[in-house]
Order: sequence, then structure tokens, then C-alpha cells
Amino acid sequence: MKALVPAEADGTVEFAEVPEPEPGPAEVLVKVDAFSVNRGETFLLEDPPPGWRPGKDIAGLVVQAAADGSGPAVGQRVVAHPPGAGWAEYAAVRTDALAVLPERLDAPTAAALPLAGLTALRLLRAAGPVAGRRLLLTGASGGVGHYLAELAAAAGAQLTAVTANAERGLRLRELGAAEVVHSVAAANGPYDLVLESTGGTELPRALALLAPRGRLLWFGQASREPVRLDFFALLNGPVSATVQHFSYADVDHPDGPDLRTLVRLTAEGRLHPELGLLDDWRNTAGAIAALRGRRVRGNTVLTLD
Amino acid sequence: MKALVPAEADGTVEFAEVPEPEPGPAEVLVKVDAFSVNRGETFLLEDPPPGWRPGKDIAGLVVQAAADGSGPAVGQRVVAHPPGAGWAEYAAVRTDALAVLPERLDAPTAAALPLAGLTALRLLRAAGPVAGRRLLLTGASGGVGHYLAELAAAAGAQLTAVTANAERGLRLRELGAAEVVHSVAAANGPYDLVLESTGGTELPRALALLAPRGRLLWFGQASREPVRLDFFALLNGPVSATVQHFSYADVDHPDGPDLRTLVRLTAEGRLHPELGLLDDWRNTAGAIAALRGRRVRGNTVLTLD
Repeated sequence: MKALVPAEADGTVEFAEVPEPEPGPAEVLVKVDAFSVNRGETFLLEDPPPGWRPGKDIAGLVVQAAADGSGPAVGQRVVAHPPGAGWAEYAAVRTDALAVLPERLDAPTAAALPLAGLTALRLLRAAGPVAGRRLLLTGASGGVGHYLAELAAAAGAQLTAVTANAERGLRLRELGAAEVVHSVAAANGPYDLVLESTGGTELPRALALLAPRGRLLWFGQASREPVRLDFFALLNGPVSATVQHFSYADVDHPDGPDLRTLVRLTAEGRLHPELGLLDDWRNTAGAIAALRGRRVRGNTVLTLD
Repeated sequence: MKALVPAEADGTVEFAEVPEPEPGPAEVLVKVDAFSVNRGETFLLEDPPPGWRPGKDIAGLVVQAAADGSGPAVGQRVVAHPPGAGWAEYAAVRTDALAVLPERLDAPTAAALPLAGLTALRLLRAAGPVAGRRLLLTGASGGVGHYLAELAAAAGAQLTAVTANAERGLRLRELGAAEVVHSVAAANGPYDLVLESTGGTELPRALALLAPRGRLLWFGQASREPVRLDFFALLNGPVSATVQHFSYADVDHPDGPDLRTLVRLTAEGRLHPELGLLDDWRNTAGAIAALRGRRVRGNTVLTLD
């Protein structure tokens, strides 16, 4: 079958002929209709681990059921979150890492859900109750940012989103953000909670905007720059400020139930994946370049024939 | 009266003749018998703010009661925590920032209590329940460290203390630390809680020893080096690790009740100030040099004639 594999020349991907996956007993075989590209995958492609193939977010058709009897039947459409190798004609997926799709949810929209949606859902769980609380969300124009804005606003938060420019923040107001600003310096604190994904110099700036005993959930480092924290400088900031490192993989349970929640919310019209780039998978290398160049708002989705 | 003031020549102190303080309506005048030196004061002495005089921890005799009728009477002995200017023959102190001393608590011991003791008491409050929990305490050989070790052990914690060498950790085992090690690298995690006061490269090392969803309370930067945190490196560490910046000044209430608690615990034999250096106040400059050189275990206390 055809699959996208790391292209050493330019740090993107190229087509290769690879063996069809052989599903384990608790895995279904999915004919992939669409997949999405995540920032973490673009990082990994710069220095790909040996044998690794990208692809954590897919949607498609079950063409072989799991041998152990778990999961969906042949012919059902699913969204799935395999550990990798999903940018291919076929992917094997554990039945506890997928959700069945209702008819009205198309494959490109569904493919935009897993990693970004799981991250947003679990970040809000880590945030605790947000109704009536003031939230600051940095790096808000990506896939996670759009989901977070919509879910947090629906839960009653008053959310300030930070995006690089007005165009990248357009949809966030529609999804429920109370305001969109274009730098942390332009945000008016204090905030009860900061959701931070840029690292570098922006994180300390955002930290300084916390209310006393406020918390910053740190879920990414899009700037690629580590963070420098000075104890003495923080003494002039909010008292008892907390930085909590967040990984979307911090869950005690499999992904299935959370994927089903994301599917349900989308089907009910409560969650609106923002497909900022939708293209044919032959153009995946170009999509990766656009994502790296911060030219994509929301999710980057590629479709197969 | 005589007072110690910043000495620009060597960043320590020198004697000067200054006016006696004029107490405000809610202040008593204290004839100072002993005071202690805190690390933060040694930092400030390197670049003293204009008009500032050191001295936050004193013990002595009330020689003038407060005009508003609050606080102790003339002739009572007190420990107090003024914002500064305590290294002098007399100090004015607000009546909500002192505690009356019982007969059996001498002035040098009492003078070791305020800043270090308040920090330890409030750190443990911020820590929450510690019974049966594994704690790592870095920079443990100072005044705060000794108080923390004794209070945490009494509250049921299993505490690992980190000190530069065996001599500096001697008393910590006696006070209740389960073990004393001489580098963070020698500590065996995971720990439910880390109490960190060195900053620099030690904080990230200690952070890596946390249990999942563990918390690091950051209460100092004795190394003088800021901390560098890399989001991606942390992904290989404990999930959802939290760094909480702590300032002992983060309280909604005045210092009086907490000072009374420290006095009571000491009088009951539950808290044992470790007077690593006890000298005449004529030798304060030398005491500061010893503290800077990390040659003092526990507290540094100076006495007046």
C-alpha cells in the first residue's frame, strides 16, 4: 500500500510502498479517508526516530473487524487515534482508541478531532470549574486553541485569546472568545487561569498576569524556546503563582470515551472543527510547510481519494 | 542610638548613630536583645535600597507600650517581625507583628524564629496534608530547612533532606528527617512533594523526581541562578508536574498568630531553633560573611549587651 514516510531531504514526507498493517487481536483495519497533521508531528519529522511513520489522527472505514470481537463491525465509519503510521491507505487501530462516526459527520471533520480535541478536553478537565472565571489562552489560533475557546466559553469562562494577528483570530470570537488580542502584552489581567502553549519569553509574561494563587497550565512550546524563571522576579508578580506542566497523554483511561465525547459534541453542533487547510494527501509536504510557517488557522487535514 | 546600617565598602554593615524610632499609635518600642540575619538580607546588603536598614527578626523588652492600647505592656519580653531596621538598640514594632515570650524562652532562641519559622509554617500549610507522604527538601541546612524538617516529620512526612555535606545535615536526622543526602542526584524518588530553595540547575533535577501529579513548592533561589524549564524535556518526566512559587508573605492575616504558634511550639519543645552561629552584634559583619560562605548551619543570631 501507499504511505507517507519521513523525507530526509526537507524534513517533510514522501510516498513509499510499505506492507499493509497486520492488525493485532484487539485492532481493526481502517481504510483511511482523511488524516490531520499536528505540530508535534512536524517537530518529529525534523529528526524522525528510526522506523517511525507519522499519523496519529485518522478517519475512515473499518474493512476488517477485531479478531477478539471488540469494537466496530466491517462497514462502520470511525475516527481513531493510533500511536502513529496513520498517514497511509490503511491503518491498524486498537478498538479502545476509536469512536464510531454518525452519518452526518464527514471524514475530514472527524480527522481533525483526536489529538487537538483530546488536548482541549483534558486541559479543561485539568483546569477545573471555569464558569465566571477569567482565562487567558496563548497560541490560540491552532487546532487546540479553537477547541479550547469554544469549550471554555460554553462552560462559562470569560476567555481572552492571543493570536499573532486579526486574521488568525477571526473565528475565535465567533466560537465564544470574549476578546482576541495580538500579544500577551496587550492582555489585561489578572486572569484566574492561563492556558499557555508557546513557552520562551511569552510564558513568564503570561504568568505575571495571573491573579493571586492563579495557575498556568503549560501545554506546549511552539516557540521552541525553553522558559527562564527567576525566583526573585516572580516575587514582584502574583503571589503563589503555579505552573503546571500538562501532557494530553496524562489519563488513566483509554482514549475511546473521550473520542466519543468529541464526536458527540461535534454532531450536536457544540464543537466546530476549524479546517484551516484541507487538501489532497498528495500535497501533504506543502501542508506541513504551511503549518510550520504559521499560515494555517485551526486544523490541517488531508484527504485520500 | 546605635544601629547597624549598610556598609557600602564590603556589602555588610557598620555602626552608625541614628535617631531613636518614634512608634506609631499601634506600635510598641522594643529594646532589642537579639536579632537574626536572613539570607534575603545578605542579598539586599549587596545593593541596599536608599534609606533601608536591615533587621526583620528581633527579640527584646517592651519599653514603651502602644498608644492605642493594643499589644503588650512595658516590661514584657517579645519576639517581633518588623519590616526592617531591627538591627539596632531600639526598634518600633506593630503590635500585630509580635508575640509575647514565656519566661523560659531566651532572646537569642526567640530571635531565630520569625522569618525562617513563618516560612516553614506557611510552606507546610501550602503543602497540605503530609502524613505518610514522601517529601524532598533541598537546601535543607539553613534556618528554614531545620524548622521544616522538624515540623514535617512531626506531621508524619517521610522527609529526605539535601545538604552540601554531612556536617551540615547532622541535626536534621535528629530533628526527624528520614534521610540526609548530599545532592539531588543522590535522592531516590519519586516524591509526592518537593520543597525547593536553590533554583538554578537543581530545581529541574528535583522536579524530575516528582511522582505523577506531584508538586514542587519553590521558595528560594540560593544559587542566585534562574531556572530553565524545557517543555519537551518535561514530557519525559512525571506527568502533570507542578511548580508553585511560594512567598512567605502570602498571607491574608497579620503575622502575630503565626509568631505565637512558633513561640508555643518552641516552648513546648516541639521546635528546636538551631543557632549555628551565635555572636555579639559587634561581629555582625563577620556573621554575614559566614552566612554567605555557607558556613552556618541553621540560624545566625547576634546579641546586644
